[in-house]
Amino acid sequence: MSDSPRRAVVLVSGGLDSATVLAIARSQGFDCYAISFDYGQRHRQELAAAARVATAGGATRHIVVPVDLRAFGGSALTDAIDVPKDRDEAAMSAGIPITYVPARNTIFLSLALGWAEVLGARDLFIGVNAVDYSGYPDCRPEFVAAFERLANLATKAGVEGARWTVQAPLIELTKAEIIRQGVSLGVDYSLTHSCYDPDAAGQACGHCDSCQLRLLGFADAGLTDPVQYQPR
Amino acid sequence: MSDSPRRAVVLVSGGLDSATVLAIARSQGFDCYAISFDYGQRHRQELAAAARVATAGGATRHIVVPVDLRAFGGSALTDAIDVPKDRDEAAMSAGIPITYVPARNTIFLSLALGWAEVLGARDLFIGVNAVDYSGYPDCRPEFVAAFERLANLATKAGVEGARWTVQAPLIELTKAEIIRQGVSLGVDYSLTHSCYDPDAAGQACGHCDSCQLRLLGFADAGLTDPVQYQPR
Repeated sequence: MSDSPRRAVVLVSGGLDSATVLAIARSQGFDCYAISFDYGQRHRQELAAAARVATAGGATRHIVVPVDLRAFGGSALTDAIDVPKDRDEAAMSAGIPITYVPARNTIFLSLALGWAEVLGARDLFIGVNAVDYSGYPDCRPEFVAAFERLANLATKAGVEGARWTVQAPLIELTKAEIIRQGVSLGVDYSLTHSCYDPDAAGQACGHCDSCQLRLLGFADAGLTDPVQYQPR
Repeated sequence: MSDSPRRAVVLVSGGLDSATVLAIARSQGFDCYAISFDYGQRHRQELAAAARVATAGGATRHIVVPVDLRAFGGSALTDAIDVPKDRDEAAMSAGIPITYVPARNTIFLSLALGWAEVLGARDLFIGVNAVDYSGYPDCRPEFVAAFERLANLATKAGVEGARWTVQAPLIELTKAEIIRQGVSLGVDYSLTHSCYDPDAAGQACGHCDSCQLRLLGFADAGLTDPVQYQPR
């Protein structure tokens, strides 16, 4: 496998963060392989968004791996549990939200790792963020570092001396900073989907935590979110 | 969720090792939840064996999670690559075999972790073995320890103070020792399936690395393998 340009696997959910991460990885010169997961999420519009984002973002290839986390239950993102709406910032940042999917980023990074090993990539890019989503344990820098360490022990490549890097370039950024960086790199945020609870037509609700953080981010950045929201 | 008896998630492939691990977990008093993976393996007979093993081994529940690793390619276990046959012990223990599936145990343990968190289990049991399968990086004690550390950082339970344990009770045992322990715990090895390359009827080939290690193990233990092999 050629080492030039270097390949990277980029986790692309179709949301604002991962669209930005793909643009960052490309701006660093990586040949990007985008991976998404069909995990039984209620907000399946994000898979269509992921395909749009991967194409627009210049990914060399995009795969969707089916892995049905509904088998486990336990999350408002996969079960028939109500997604919280219209919470204030204090409520959104307190504790671990019901939208937490057990071990989700561990599972997703593991699958990305398997594909990366086959591709000869040594870099994984993930759009986790410890500022706006501090309630998710698997969005913290110590989680990312522990996964990197695991990857070096878990793989043939690691045993043979390769060093894995899990790049989480958004981890310390606010949502407004993420959006500004994405805009400067030419990300078209109209292609992205963030809502946990879209309507049948795929329009964002504007009231779940994800929509609210997104709207606050655009407001803080002094920009207008190009996505259409449901009339209320 | 009740803490008594303690729940454990046991990775059950349908092979000899995981059947033994399930018996060990049960003998320790755990309420066992068996998890298997439909990952596009060529030797799909192991999924039928996994269901038999889970039932006979007293698992409270058994789930099969579909996660199609063929999307990545790169292994003789999922691709149309020939499975090596009739290798001697030196060849089998040299290097990382073509039957290595990139990041497989990382992926499987991650999925087990997600289910365990929902179940309120804190123990994962896996039948990895560093003696007979020393070529697989994700069968080593340092891999298991790194995953345990990751689990404590990755999960809501870990953040809330729970300590995860990844139990790998076979890790330092020879195949003969595993078989002796299983027999002493009443494991019915006729229900298990180890072959990487069974025929259409599901009969084991007797010549792939997995069959050879199994047959050597029974011979070393002074026992006869109850499984039928293909006539040659």
